[in-house]
Amino acid sequence: MALIVQKYGGTSVGTIERIEAVAEKVIKFRQDGHDVVVVVSAMSGETNRLLGLASDVMERPDPRELDVLVSTGEQVTIALLSMALKKRGWDARSYTGGQVRILTDDSHGKARIQDIDGDKMRDDLNAGRVVVVAGFQGVDADGNITTLGRGGSDTTGVALAAALGADECQIYTDVDGVYTTDPRVVEDARRLEQITFEEMLEMASLGSKVLQIRSVEFAGKYKVPLRVLSSFKEGPGTLITIDNEEDDSMEQPLISGIAFNRDEAKLTLVGVPDIPGVASRILGPVGDQNVEVDMIVQNIGQDGTTDFTFTVHRNEYEKAEEILTQICTDLGAREVVGDNKIAKVSIVGVGMRSHAGVASTMFRTLAKENINIQMISTSEIKVSVVIDEKYLELAVRSLHSAFELAEKE
Amino acid sequence: MALIVQKYGGTSVGTIERIEAVAEKVIKFRQDGHDVVVVVSAMSGETNRLLGLASDVMERPDPRELDVLVSTGEQVTIALLSMALKKRGWDARSYTGGQVRILTDDSHGKARIQDIDGDKMRDDLNAGRVVVVAGFQGVDADGNITTLGRGGSDTTGVALAAALGADECQIYTDVDGVYTTDPRVVEDARRLEQITFEEMLEMASLGSKVLQIRSVEFAGKYKVPLRVLSSFKEGPGTLITIDNEEDDSMEQPLISGIAFNRDEAKLTLVGVPDIPGVASRILGPVGDQNVEVDMIVQNIGQDGTTDFTFTVHRNEYEKAEEILTQICTDLGAREVVGDNKIAKVSIVGVGMRSHAGVASTMFRTLAKENINIQMISTSEIKVSVVIDEKYLELAVRSLHSAFELAEKE
Repeated sequence: MALIVQKYGGTSVGTIERIEAVAEKVIKFRQDGHDVVVVVSAMSGETNRLLGLASDVMERPDPRELDVLVSTGEQVTIALLSMALKKRGWDARSYTGGQVRILTDDSHGKARIQDIDGDKMRDDLNAGRVVVVAGFQGVDADGNITTLGRGGSDTTGVALAAALGADECQIYTDVDGVYTTDPRVVEDARRLEQITFEEMLEMASLGSKVLQIRSVEFAGKYKVPLRVLSSFKEGPGTLITIDNEEDDSMEQPLISGIAFNRDEAKLTLVGVPDIPGVASRILGPVGDQNVEVDMIVQNIGQDGTTDFTFTVHRNEYEKAEEILTQICTDLGAREVVGDNKIAKVSIVGVGMRSHAGVASTMFRTLAKENINIQMISTSEIKVSVVIDEKYLELAVRSLHSAFELAEKE
Repeated sequence: MALIVQKYGGTSVGTIERIEAVAEKVIKFRQDGHDVVVVVSAMSGETNRLLGLASDVMERPDPRELDVLVSTGEQVTIALLSMALKKRGWDARSYTGGQVRILTDDSHGKARIQDIDGDKMRDDLNAGRVVVVAGFQGVDADGNITTLGRGGSDTTGVALAAALGADECQIYTDVDGVYTTDPRVVEDARRLEQITFEEMLEMASLGSKVLQIRSVEFAGKYKVPLRVLSSFKEGPGTLITIDNEEDDSMEQPLISGIAFNRDEAKLTLVGVPDIPGVASRILGPVGDQNVEVDMIVQNIGQDGTTDFTFTVHRNEYEKAEEILTQICTDLGAREVVGDNKIAKVSIVGVGMRSHAGVASTMFRTLAKENINIQMISTSEIKVSVVIDEKYLELAVRSLHSAFELAEKE
């Protein structure tokens, strides 16, 4: 007898048949005696259809009205899923974000949840009903419809689980869990039974796009146990846990997974005067132009100058180069050099905190394959390197094997 | 400087181009200094698309969830129209039925409006905004989404006009007013400058499907001046007025229009015992089976028996015949006879109240054309006859001419 919040994304509710399959899945949990709150996205394609209508009217649609428009997508799904449950003899009730009063701030299109009133949902659960809630949407203090931004349905699921004190928040998606690395690159990549929130954050931001980063942060903050499962395949998925350092019984592996990203480009400003305030004079204008920067590396200087390197999304390479060329002139730096044929590979694991030698194993493995490391950046639970794009698969495979992450026979 | 409520139906907002045209129309009224509240339906086809999704899930969709589903149709339109207004530099704000708190009872799919909170709308109007409200929907006391039933957007328009004390409620549709009869049958049918609520009710229920009957009743009750206009054609339309019997200056024509209906069938129970309680023993079972009865005629009996005739929608002819056959046995009546090749023709006009001879002109006109009258039924402002279907056009044309309703040269 647990309270479970389940979230199904757009692909999982993309057709009437799939909505019926979700109903069957929900009913299995009810039959096992659990209370279930279901959060759903818009049917796949619907949000894009609505955005298309909006852009036919207005090139940059009014944010308030855009939220009124796109929030209908999830509203359609909650009604259909509730019907599918009722048809099978299980009582259900649907709610829009406004109806269960998912109170947000008034930042249309990227609103943040401030409060949720769980009373109505608790009454329904006590009456034996399945509660079906529209993901991705809320209402501000003045009663205006808001949306949490694309992918915000995951956040709705986690927020509801937190507000209701749910035992588990299950995120159903089209993969059956979090893997040690992308199975398309490494054939014997292994599904992780569990992973910590911190690792998950590093994995997600590094390109394992299983969950929205925001929802993982949210789950970590409110200590909601999160599980990633497949909508289409039976299986336990991957449990995302709170990292408990006191817990000695938990034998943590050194490394949980290998993340990678081929969408990056690097830019270096060469011969920058090595004086205080230079970094912000470089990154300030870049940020002002809304170019997001990922890795930043600056080594010690020589002869009064230093080299400043950062990576950006490959799509923004030209834009960043242009900005940097201007900065080069302004700062009296030597030149701008760049490369958009790079890839980033990272090893992630909370275990590395207490073990030296993880980074050196990584570097030795790459050296053995004659892969040159162009940049290095580390955090407490991650080591990232930038390498030539053409070595990406080779690097990921050899690291996966060096850290013994493969599926056990 | 008037306050005008405008309602645009599904055809008028059926494409992005048409929504833009509605925006232009609204702006013209704003430019003339009027305050405008706009009520819109779902884009044409959208409600049927949503109903299709529902029936794919559930043969008889759950009423509460069906309302959650179909109410998204209007929500899409309000957002798009508000965007179209904003794009043109006119401030606008959209509201769902729940957001302006169109409070209804909880009869899902056919809810009735109980109260409207005009405060938000008045604030917006005072701030110079166009208020755009989703038609056809409301919210019950528990916050559940309700719908007023198909065509309920007209009712929303009238109810908002009443709540806000609007100077006029304009219903935009695909015809440019109310005509003396169907112009497809009588070429020189004339658009009426005005018509009374009572006449409009008789015209509407008799098949001139310009306005939803309920909205006309509503407008009459709250004395909201109602105007029917075309979305696509300029013109003054038809004003639906309160019939003021004190007003001598208003020279009322004898007859305002000729209504007709070809969707009827008649059934007669022959040789019914002429005793008290028989009528209800016949109509009781018919009503229990949800068969709607239109005209009912019973003449005086002879030899202790009488004949009892009524008309039903042609689609329900077989069903009604079956029920009546059972009743025939139960009551010991002689037989059931019926005819589904009939049509009803009615003359409507408040003027006939004070003028004898209107009915006899009607009967004489039909006799002159050798059209046999099968049934007659009258009300204070209407005379209806049932005739053989094949004479329908001839009857309507000759009556239109006899009462001199044609367009003046």
